[in-house]
Amino acid sequence: MPEQTAPDRALPADAALRARAVRVIPGGLWGHMNAARLPASFPQYFGRSEGCRLWDADGNEYIDFMCAYGPVVLGYRDAEVEAAVAARLAKGDIFNGPAPELVELAEALVDTVAHADWAMFQKNGTDATTACVTLARAGTGRRKVLVAKGAYHGAAPWCTPSLVGVTAEDRAHIAEFAYNDIASLQTAAEAAEGELAGVIVSAFRHDARRDQESPAPEFARAVRALCDRTGAALILDDVRAGFRIDIRGSWEPLGVRPDLSAWSKAIANGHPLAAVTGTDRFREAAQSTFMTGSFWCGAAAMAAALVTLRRLRDTDAIQHMKTMGERLREGLAAQARAHGVALRQTGPAQMPMLLFDDDPDLAKGDSFVKEALARGVYLHPWHNMFLSAAHRPEDIDLALEATDAALRETARRFS
Amino acid sequence: MPEQTAPDRALPADAALRARAVRVIPGGLWGHMNAARLPASFPQYFGRSEGCRLWDADGNEYIDFMCAYGPVVLGYRDAEVEAAVAARLAKGDIFNGPAPELVELAEALVDTVAHADWAMFQKNGTDATTACVTLARAGTGRRKVLVAKGAYHGAAPWCTPSLVGVTAEDRAHIAEFAYNDIASLQTAAEAAEGELAGVIVSAFRHDARRDQESPAPEFARAVRALCDRTGAALILDDVRAGFRIDIRGSWEPLGVRPDLSAWSKAIANGHPLAAVTGTDRFREAAQSTFMTGSFWCGAAAMAAALVTLRRLRDTDAIQHMKTMGERLREGLAAQARAHGVALRQTGPAQMPMLLFDDDPDLAKGDSFVKEALARGVYLHPWHNMFLSAAHRPEDIDLALEATDAALRETARRFS
Repeated sequence: MPEQTAPDRALPADAALRARAVRVIPGGLWGHMNAARLPASFPQYFGRSEGCRLWDADGNEYIDFMCAYGPVVLGYRDAEVEAAVAARLAKGDIFNGPAPELVELAEALVDTVAHADWAMFQKNGTDATTACVTLARAGTGRRKVLVAKGAYHGAAPWCTPSLVGVTAEDRAHIAEFAYNDIASLQTAAEAAEGELAGVIVSAFRHDARRDQESPAPEFARAVRALCDRTGAALILDDVRAGFRIDIRGSWEPLGVRPDLSAWSKAIANGHPLAAVTGTDRFREAAQSTFMTGSFWCGAAAMAAALVTLRRLRDTDAIQHMKTMGERLREGLAAQARAHGVALRQTGPAQMPMLLFDDDPDLAKGDSFVKEALARGVYLHPWHNMFLSAAHRPEDIDLALEATDAALRETARRFS
Repeated sequence: MPEQTAPDRALPADAALRARAVRVIPGGLWGHMNAARLPASFPQYFGRSEGCRLWDADGNEYIDFMCAYGPVVLGYRDAEVEAAVAARLAKGDIFNGPAPELVELAEALVDTVAHADWAMFQKNGTDATTACVTLARAGTGRRKVLVAKGAYHGAAPWCTPSLVGVTAEDRAHIAEFAYNDIASLQTAAEAAEGELAGVIVSAFRHDARRDQESPAPEFARAVRALCDRTGAALILDDVRAGFRIDIRGSWEPLGVRPDLSAWSKAIANGHPLAAVTGTDRFREAAQSTFMTGSFWCGAAAMAAALVTLRRLRDTDAIQHMKTMGERLREGLAAQARAHGVALRQTGPAQMPMLLFDDDPDLAKGDSFVKEALARGVYLHPWHNMFLSAAHRPEDIDLALEATDAALRETARRFS
């Protein structure tokens, strides 16, 4: 590995918290937010947020392009969302049943999401994807579910990326196909031999550490045709991409409607909520299964979602994210050309992935994001990133000043 | 069924919401809060809460004995908890990593919970119980998990009470024993034949629709001895009872410590949070599995939990709930005697269950809770109830005025 000369900034508050954490939390932190997955100079702890800005526990400010890994879509601490949450909390969040916001939110989703005849709410994206699989099985009376190899659909035993603690039986009826590969889909479906309950597919191929792929329209149509022919449920996993591509559902521009969709992340601008939407065909299944959670009727997150949905629907927020993502993408492309670096930019502009050519150990990517971080811009070296409606042109331009220097430094180091 | 003469109060706002809901939510509502599980006069929707009081969507006030099915332990909208949440939300709830409250809360749990060397956080009680099962398997390299027949451990495929949408393989390595029955436990363990990963057991037997049972000390010790002998994990499901029996863990008064505990419900006084605590033996397992959720690092719920834990630890809150539960229990017992009704009161006084003798279809229970509801007291006919620290003696005495009339009416109707 080349010498890493990026300033490894002192983060004393962060270091102190990490030292305390490692004693009382296994490995210091679980899951996707564990800073051990990032270059060493990245902060683990944060104290404050606003708009598209984050402040780490040491008070360093960043222009952020992760949006808390997706949930923040209107911007951190959006004033209108937070006012709705505060107003709800002032009356109460949780009771022996839901608040009226439950009905308003289900109606708003049914009005907004093209395929939706009904909605149910949960807390985790994994709750929603797992519910969809269960509903597909309940509705079809079959067991087999097809998933794209390498796709992330959550952290339950049937889908979590690590097999530690998982039994073979947890995946007995899960079979794989390759995203965008119609032949592999058909082969997997044939192997299911009349037992096909559903096909779960991400809105686009947003696997980590590789170029992102849009769904080919003919692939999306083939999934729909397969499900129509076999009676299986087409489950769209819109947890990560939902509310950033098309408010009606991320496959609506392709003209392909799912039977069931899983939503979470951006649905309530960072407040904890997930949802399943479905067609009438799966209404009876949804009614006959038993799924619940202590906090699933919490009204504060639903109040946040009502504002978030309305704002995304009634403003140009999604187009704005796309425009800001394109401004970033075009700026980066010009900088990469200028510095003679082969930078691959994939995925929807509002959910960009940045990877370098000839970078098998991600050393270039690490160098780039470290240099950007040291200049106040928070990027991710191998996970798709997220724009929000709070990113302004001047934020993008400021970020581009940092990335220009970061790309120059990276080009110099690896030349 | 005897004629139900309890005033079926007009609930026009509730009725209108139900009519709207049934169009856009399968069955009107999922899970444990579905009012279809209760007598017809119970409200489905709520608008406001404070202390031990609830107001339904029509503005009717109740002295509440469900505490949102457990999460509310200091009282609805506790001022100090809500101030901590508001202060956290004013700085931000969710970032690209946790806030310092994560470390403070893990330290507080490790300091408070007797067996805990470490903690991890999630959103649902089901997340926590499922994580414990996965960690037991990861830590032992075995697959079989014993559960008590009829126990509720959540709504994931491995444990949800309904088998609709669940495959046989989801439960391939789950085997049953009878709560408090040492022989059945040993038989089940022997059948696991060296493959025993863990035994998951509720803090007490709080199954619905039956008398509650405390764990016999010799049963608790037998579970511990079995796990010690076989190397399996003793998993205490403290999701429902946790923080109401003993702040150190609900089996601490028995002198029996689990290897892993699942917590949720009352941990943050109604804000969405769950936790797993474990011993060092399972630290490496916890570090090697992959579990995560978009909102698991949300700091607002952790800020709520810090206040909740401190208040439960540093005040007489748990003893107070018990004292208030005993005041209710003694009052009800005297009333039942006076009205010649055989009322069975079981479970810890702060988590009471009320069932009537000779009431196979729960008609007496339904009559009783309907009559109490009509007089402003919210009780449950077949699920354990919950006291909170906000129940004052005068609330109990007011509630007892209502129950006296409700018992008199029920006695008259069924005599």
